[in-house]
Amino acid sequence: MAARPITFLSDYGLGDEFVGVVHGVIATICPEARVVDLGHGVPRQDVQAGALMLARALPYTPAGVHLAVVDPEVGARRRAVALRTADEGRLLVGPDNGLLTPAAERFGGVAEAVEISASPWRLEPLSATFHGRDVFAPVAARLAGGAPLASAGTPLEPDELVTLEQTRPRQEEDSLVAHVVATDTYGNVVLDATHGDLLERGLKLGDAVAARTSTRRVRGVLARTFSDVAAGGLIVYEDAGGALALAINGGDAAALVGVRPGDEVRLEAE
Amino acid sequence: MAARPITFLSDYGLGDEFVGVVHGVIATICPEARVVDLGHGVPRQDVQAGALMLARALPYTPAGVHLAVVDPEVGARRRAVALRTADEGRLLVGPDNGLLTPAAERFGGVAEAVEISASPWRLEPLSATFHGRDVFAPVAARLAGGAPLASAGTPLEPDELVTLEQTRPRQEEDSLVAHVVATDTYGNVVLDATHGDLLERGLKLGDAVAARTSTRRVRGVLARTFSDVAAGGLIVYEDAGGALALAINGGDAAALVGVRPGDEVRLEAE
Amino acid sequence: MAARPITFLSDYGLGDEFVGVVHGVIATICPEARVVDLGHGVPRQDVQAGALMLARALPYTPAGVHLAVVDPEVGARRRAVALRTADEGRLLVGPDNGLLTPAAERFGGVAEAVEISASPWRLEPLSATFHGRDVFAPVAARLAGGAPLASAGTPLEPDELVTLEQTRPRQEEDSLVAHVVATDTYGNVVLDATHGDLLERGLKLGDAVAARTSTRRVRGVLARTFSDVAAGGLIVYEDAGGALALAINGGDAAALVGVRPGDEVRLEAE
Repeated sequence: MAARPITFLSDYGLGDEFVGVVHGVIATICPEARVVDLGHGVPRQDVQAGALMLARALPYTPAGVHLAVVDPEVGARRRAVALRTADEGRLLVGPDNGLLTPAAERFGGVAEAVEISASPWRLEPLSATFHGRDVFAPVAARLAGGAPLASAGTPLEPDELVTLEQTRPRQEEDSLVAHVVATDTYGNVVLDATHGDLLERGLKLGDAVAARTSTRRVRGVLARTFSDVAAGGLIVYEDAGGALALAINGGDAAALVGVRPGDEVRLEAE
Repeated sequence: MAARPITFLSDYGLGDEFVGVVHGVIATICPEARVVDLGHGVPRQDVQAGALMLARALPYTPAGVHLAVVDPEVGARRRAVALRTADEGRLLVGPDNGLLTPAAERFGGVAEAVEISASPWRLEPLSATFHGRDVFAPVAARLAGGAPLASAGTPLEPDELVTLEQTRPRQEEDSLVAHVVATDTYGNVVLDATHGDLLERGLKLGDAVAARTSTRRVRGVLARTFSDVAAGGLIVYEDAGGALALAINGGDAAALVGVRPGDEVRLEAE
Repeated sequence: MAARPITFLSDYGLGDEFVGVVHGVIATICPEARVVDLGHGVPRQDVQAGALMLARALPYTPAGVHLAVVDPEVGARRRAVALRTADEGRLLVGPDNGLLTPAAERFGGVAEAVEISASPWRLEPLSATFHGRDVFAPVAARLAGGAPLASAGTPLEPDELVTLEQTRPRQEEDSLVAHVVATDTYGNVVLDATHGDLLERGLKLGDAVAARTSTRRVRGVLARTFSDVAAGGLIVYEDAGGALALAINGGDAAALVGVRPGDEVRLEAE
């Protein structure tokens, strides 16, 4: 049987050998598994940002084993888990800190969960600080090779899994109040609202919209893509992940609007 | 039949999940295709720099499908294209903004071109801002799997393709006037001239040469490799891509000479 | 016969196409070889740092061909070599500047060595500055495909290989004197000592320890993992590579203690 493909997301960065070592462990245990790097540029120890990247990326990957490691509490009491999703039977492997659950929700939620901290498949001696290498990679590799999830560790009730607090946008009289979920390396600002939330207010493509924070107010246009406005112009648009977002044509919206993840942004008709 | 290998170049950077998502789409459509990342560090939206990197790298890759995305006008009216080269039948996929044509010229030019903006293979719903995922990746994956180029979209005359303006060096009485084509992360400066252009002036390996800009004049040596001069010394040399270039042994020539892509550099005997 | 897997480590960084071109050369010569990137973020031209990364990573990779390039003297008189280790018969390929030998020592040392500067397998024309592409990649690819090591070039006595000077820790009356071997991108500080060196002084997990340099003295705890102390606290711990190391929970130990590779750090009971 061909091995299942593995995807791998982390906050390890590419400056050290950590990502390469995890690949090495997988290639040793399951040489035939293809490994797709989803990215290792999650801001260090930012579980919320990693969870969003994983949830947005997974629908574009083949169903298989999905390894994700953003793990500020490595070596402490947080659980390590492997999950099976209700739809497509995808297998998610990582720390039990909320990183995996938004992605699992895109596939019908968690049908089966296993605690793998003491997995029979882990590497010995177990380090206290590199469970990507010693716990998560060997479990992902064995699952990719076809080993049953139940053998990875001890059963866990899906509703015991840690979940993340998520902000929600709200409609107020004069504005849509949204929150910054993430900013990417282009400076584009992803909000927790959708395009539909603005349409609901009677706004339509081409309308002038302002983005207001506690300290700034920037005028823009509700548009489809960057080049719908002149260079330097702000657009409010539906991004490729289906979220409402802010961007500057050729510029950095996060810097111009002056926001970071968690901040509130009010969008209102000009 | 085995799938054709795919190479992938972009300006997406590695901080976000964009590169990983493109890999995911390819792995979903054509799991057996090997994908070689040529690099994702093209300076953002710099089509000229991306075109040069692609043209320099492609001769060292197996003939296959060559996906390249540097796409400042994504979602606007620029065409998306897939091309077949006259020599080796390489298939190039990307935006029609000049990014692909210098690479195609290294393989005898374009023998067949197809407009793929409305390709039957593209993902739906089509985003306005991530055609790497929604248009280019699925087309590259289908072509790698053996689907015919003509089925990717609608025919286009090769001479309708957008091409880039390219600078040319010139011989003047006292100097060779060249232009900076690119600078790499070591600070090495790639010029639009060749080693032969200096030999033509009667210069030979070991001769003293000065590099002059509008504001600076730096002395160096016409040499083979970095360690031909002491640490901190400037060399003028034929780089690994066959271009005339400037480098500092253990230093940053772009910073020392004070140049950026597009700038003029005069090379003259000391 | 299936090809041997290849691992690849370098200081090329990911901003240019150098890593991609090496992959392209390998994929052209030996398409069936799997290539695992161990990392390309070795500090530029830092042979010592590259040697350490390679030696720490290799035990976690499948036995195969191990390509490593940190090569400040490329094009000069340094030799290019391919080695076979006594244990597991791993094949290491790279410049003869000490980069490969610490890794070979983890596998019983070098059983066979070949000088490959004029290898019959190298690419022609040979560039003066990119031997990763022109010498090391084709040799690695041929070896992965099963060609015999002796055919890669001319025999070399293993004891002629260049080795690196390595610092050693020492026990003094009031402190363990160690040296900084490397710092990673988290700011964790790897020392040349082991956990055992502190246990030998009668220290045990949970004890207070101070790290002293010529200008600073920082108090910490001998601990297992980051979260054993409050945010901002210093730990002295056994890292995942088995070395004694310093880290700050959620912070940058190299910056706080003010050290760089080569510096001396004294560890003493509080």
